Amino acid sequence: MSDATVARVRAAADALGYRPDPTARSLRTRRSGVAGVVVPDLTNPVLPPIVRGIEETLWSAGIACLLADTDNDEEREAALIEELRSRRCEGLIVASAVRTAQIPDLPTVLVTREAGSLPLVAADDASGIRAVVAHLRELGHTRIAHITGPLNLSTTTRRLAAFGEGPVVHGEAFTIAAGERACAQLLREHPETTAIVAGNDMIALGCYAALAAAGLRCPDDVSVTGHNDMPLIDRVQPPLTTVAIPQYEIGVAAANTLLARLRGEPVGSMLLPTRLVIRASTSRPRPRRSPG
Amino acid sequence: MSDATVARVRAAADALGYRPDPTARSLRTRRSGVAGVVVPDLTNPVLPPIVRGIEETLWSAGIACLLADTDNDEEREAALIEELRSRRCEGLIVASAVRTAQIPDLPTVLVTREAGSLPLVAADDASGIRAVVAHLRELGHTRIAHITGPLNLSTTTRRLAAFGEGPVVHGEAFTIAAGERACAQLLREHPETTAIVAGNDMIALGCYAALAAAGLRCPDDVSVTGHNDMPLIDRVQPPLTTVAIPQYEIGVAAANTLLARLRGEPVGSMLLPTRLVIRASTSRPRPRRSPG
Repeated sequence: MSDATVARVRAAADALGYRPDPTARSLRTRRSGVAGVVVPDLTNPVLPPIVRGIEETLWSAGIACLLADTDNDEEREAALIEELRSRRCEGLIVASAVRTAQIPDLPTVLVTREAGSLPLVAADDASGIRAVVAHLRELGHTRIAHITGPLNLSTTTRRLAAFGEGPVVHGEAFTIAAGERACAQLLREHPETTAIVAGNDMIALGCYAALAAAGLRCPDDVSVTGHNDMPLIDRVQPPLTTVAIPQYEIGVAAANTLLARLRGEPVGSMLLPTRLVIRASTSRPRPRRSPG
Repeated sequence: MSDATVARVRAAADALGYRPDPTARSLRTRRSGVAGVVVPDLTNPVLPPIVRGIEETLWSAGIACLLADTDNDEEREAALIEELRSRRCEGLIVASAVRTAQIPDLPTVLVTREAGSLPLVAADDASGIRAVVAHLRELGHTRIAHITGPLNLSTTTRRLAAFGEGPVVHGEAFTIAAGERACAQLLREHPETTAIVAGNDMIALGCYAALAAAGLRCPDDVSVTGHNDMPLIDRVQPPLTTVAIPQYEIGVAAANTLLARLRGEPVGSMLLPTRLVIRASTSRPRPRRSPG
C-alpha cells in the first residue's frame, strides 16, 4: 500500500477516534479473511467512495472484500447474502438494506440504510436537512416543500422527519425522471411554493426540469436544494445548493465497526457529520405581487 | 437474481455473441470460485458500470469477485495482485494496468488499459476519436488541437494515435485541474486553435475553465470535445460533445473472456464500438476577421 493511501486511511481513522489495532492482522490467519460488501447499485455515485473506504480499511487489516451488487432487488439481496455466507465470509457490510430486510446471522454492519437493530454507519442526514431548511428560512422562504425518495428507504424517512412541517410529495425513485414527475405534481398542488428541499441531488435535477417546463426559473422563482453533493453537481446550471456527506469516512468507519465487532467488542451506530454547501440554486424569494 | 438482471446480462451477452454455458456452474465446485477484480480508482465514474458488468456476469457463473483498488499506485497494484494470488483466485480482471505493469502468472484479462500481450477488453477509443475529428472537420474546423491524458496509459496513446496531425499538449492527469493547465498552455502556444479534442471529459471541463479564464466562449470561439460521456456531462454548460463507451458491456465481455479462458478456450482481445454524442460544445468555427 502506498504511503499516501496509508496516510489517508490513518487520517480518516484518527478523525473518527480509532487507534491502530495490533491484533487485526492476526484475524486473517484465524479466519477466512474475507468479508462481503453488499451494495444496491454501484453506479449510484454515493457508493464508490464508500466502497473504497471499506475496501482500503479492510485490506489494511488483512481482510479481502467480496463485492455483491443487488441491483436494488430484495430477492437478489437475499440470494447474494446466502451465497456470501456459504463462502464463509467473516462478516458483512450491507449498503442495500431496505426496511423490511432479513437480518443475516453473520456479524453485520449497515451503511447508509438502516434495518432492524443492526449497527448503522451513515451520514447525519437529519442535521443536513435541518441546515438546508434553516438556510432557506434565513433567506426569507416560508413556503418550503419537500420531495422525498422512495418511502421504503430509511434515508427517505430520516430526511422526511427532519424536514418538519410543510407540503410533501413522494418521488418513487432517487432519479431525475421521478423528481421531475413529483415536482410537476407539487407545482400543481402547491403553486405558492418558493423553495423545494429535494430528497437527493438527482431529484433536485428533476425539479430543475419540471420548473423549466412550467416556465419557472431557479432560483429566481423557486429555490431548490439537493442532498449528497455528487460529482459535477457544482457544474450544472444553476450549481446546486446541497448537503455534502463524508462518503469515504463512512466506508472507513463501517469497516472499523466490523473489525471491532469481529474482535468481540461492543459496537454501536454512528452518524457522521454532514456539511451544507451553498451554491447558486438558492436565493431570496421573489417579492410577491399584490393580487389584482 | 431478478428476472430483470438476468435479462440484462443475457441481452448484453447475446449482443456480444456469447451463448449460455452449461458447464460454467461446475467451475465453482472444481475451483476456489473467486476471481480478483483490480481497479485503479473506483471513484472514477467510468469504472462502476464496468465492475457491475463483471460482477453480475461472474456471479451468474458462480464466481465471486474480490475487489481491490490500487489507488493508481503501481506498488500497491503489485502487492494486491500478490495478495489475490495467495488467496487462490482463479483469475484476475485488471483495469489498473499501466504500460510497465508486471504480468501475473494467473489467467488474466485486462479492461480499458492494455499491457503486454494479455487479452484486453476495451472501448474502441481510436474509432471514437476519429469520429470526433471527422465531426469537427465537417463543421469546418482546420485548426484542431489535442490535449492528452498521462502518457504512461494506453488509453492516452490509443487516442493520441487516432487523433492524427495537429498540435498536442500533454495533460499530466485525467482531471479538471490538469486539463485547465494544459489548455492554458495550448492557448499560449497555439492561439489560432478553434477546436480542442480533450483526452476525456474531465480534461474537457478543464478546457472550459481555461477558455473562460482567457475570455473565450465555448463553442462560439473554441469548440471542445470529451471522451467517456460520464454522468451529468450532458448537464454542464455547454453540454459536452463526447464519445460514449459501452461500460457495462465491457464488464460483461471481460468476465466472459475470463470464463472462456478458465475453460481453457483460446481468447483474444476485443474492442467494443463507441458512439459519438453531439451536444452543444461544438459548432462551426467563427469566421476569421481579416487582419488589419
